Amino acid sequence: MIVVFVGTAGSGKTTLTGEFGKFLEENEKKVAYVNLDTGVKSLPYIPTVDVREHITVEELMKKGYGPNGAIVESYDFLMNYLEDYIEKILMLEKENDYVLVDTPGQMETFLFHDFGVKLMENLPNPLVVYLFDPTILRRPHDYCFVRLFALLIDLRLGATTVPALNKIDLLKDLEETKRYLEDVEYLTGRLKLDTSMQGLLAYKLCKFLPEISPPVRVLYLSAKKRKGFDELETLAYEHYCTCGDLT
Amino acid sequence: MIVVFVGTAGSGKTTLTGEFGKFLEENEKKVAYVNLDTGVKSLPYIPTVDVREHITVEELMKKGYGPNGAIVESYDFLMNYLEDYIEKILMLEKENDYVLVDTPGQMETFLFHDFGVKLMENLPNPLVVYLFDPTILRRPHDYCFVRLFALLIDLRLGATTVPALNKIDLLKDLEETKRYLEDVEYLTGRLKLDTSMQGLLAYKLCKFLPEISPPVRVLYLSAKKRKGFDELETLAYEHYCTCGDLT
Ligand SMILES: Nc1nc2c(ncn2[C@@H]2O[C@H](COP(=O)(O)OP(=O)(O)O)[C@@H](O)[C@H]2O)c(=O)[nH]1
Ligand SMILES: Nc1nc2c(ncn2[C@@H]2O[C@H](COP(=O)(O)OP(=O)(O)O)[C@@H](O)[C@H]2O)c(=O)[nH]1
Repeated sequence: MIVVFVGTAGSGKTTLTGEFGKFLEENEKKVAYVNLDTGVKSLPYIPTVDVREHITVEELMKKGYGPNGAIVESYDFLMNYLEDYIEKILMLEKENDYVLVDTPGQMETFLFHDFGVKLMENLPNPLVVYLFDPTILRRPHDYCFVRLFALLIDLRLGATTVPALNKIDLLKDLEETKRYLEDVEYLTGRLKLDTSMQGLLAYKLCKFLPEISPPVRVLYLSAKKRKGFDELETLAYEHYCTCGDLT
Repeated sequence: MIVVFVGTAGSGKTTLTGEFGKFLEENEKKVAYVNLDTGVKSLPYIPTVDVREHITVEELMKKGYGPNGAIVESYDFLMNYLEDYIEKILMLEKENDYVLVDTPGQMETFLFHDFGVKLMENLPNPLVVYLFDPTILRRPHDYCFVRLFALLIDLRLGATTVPALNKIDLLKDLEETKRYLEDVEYLTGRLKLDTSMQGLLAYKLCKFLPEISPPVRVLYLSAKKRKGFDELETLAYEHYCTCGDLT
């Protein structure tokens, strides 16, 4: 089965790919690793497929590109090899229990560039794990934002997406965070108190959540401390067996 | 008034900031420019405020950071100057008709890093223009994605956000694109035909749009050919006069 880690730069995609992979291997699973980040310097795992064989952000910057231009240009260039990558990943999927896919450093590259979108369209029933960082959860409507962002990733990539809070080792009050993320009534109750235009928007968006998406499962992980890995494995397995229906 | 251009790398933020600024200046408006992109190499306008005075992605990369790490690190560092920037922009707002804000190359830096979020929280009623590129509109549910993405930006940044299709000079059928973006019934009719799980998700999300947000205005721009600039100016002006209520 294919598990794809998506998230903003620094959310922990690469660390999780490495640690979760090791965890699976220790449990006698056959694991292959795919690196789609043209900007990464070093990896804590050995990738079977690595886009840096064709192009890196740094070599483009040496040719005069700025960092943002170089990132976009690298994926424009990789479009020439899209078919190859799809074929290679499909092959890996057959030969392994798990194919773990580490995506571009900047999440938007994967969500907005055809390289990411078309690659995903051609993979059989991948599970997307959307990693986010505790630091982005400051105000009640940030929880609403995260829940909806996961739905938008699902929509854009055409793949079941599970939100996963990473770095829980840094979190003081995990129970309160869980409540905000999972108990929509509790959250909307809080949002109701905010009478600004954005408070109202958050309230409306959140109130519709249960009608739009089934009760969502959220993962609570620490890539560094290997927390929540059993739950991630179980969820990936269930996803695989039910063809994406995690309700 | 403050107009903030947000969008993925390459969507045209910098070009639009420069061209729209010139357009306003030609119409006797007093304009100030703010550059928040630590990665940009050269600008087509002269910024009054420029984050590169404190830090650039390239200098961090010379110290050994990879491109993605350097981007994140540059905004971590800029947090030390957040108050200064807020103060400077507030001052510019008093002294000018327009303050045009060009945001980080990668949109996610602005949406997910505290530098962007906290800056926006402290600006008086800024208008956010969310630029997207025609290339991301390939399938019916991509239109739904863009409409919802604009709402999520609004939610996250706490500021009225208007979706703006840039590069319309590259577009073959603008009328059909407009219809998909503005006529929710037409769009949901199309989405209904897609019986996949993601088709259903798109259908549900879109069906709720009218209940969640008032009929949205979409801008159709060409930063390069200066198309849609009158509409952008009018909308910014109305936003300013109605304190954000663009319904
Ligand atoms: N405390 C803590 N730090 C983490 C965790 N996962 C990743 N990190 C750190 O976050 C930073 C970014 O991680 P990385 O895997 O490179 O993120 P990526 O850019 O999404 O691939 C690194 O310094 C990691 O050591 C975690 O679970 N807990
Ligand atoms: N055809 C066309 N190209 C544009 C337009 N606006 C920007 N571009 C081009 O798109 C590329 C990225 O533009 P830039 O302003 O740097 O994007 P930013 O990364 O969002 O600041 C440049 O090559 C621009 O010349 C437009 O309206 N039409």
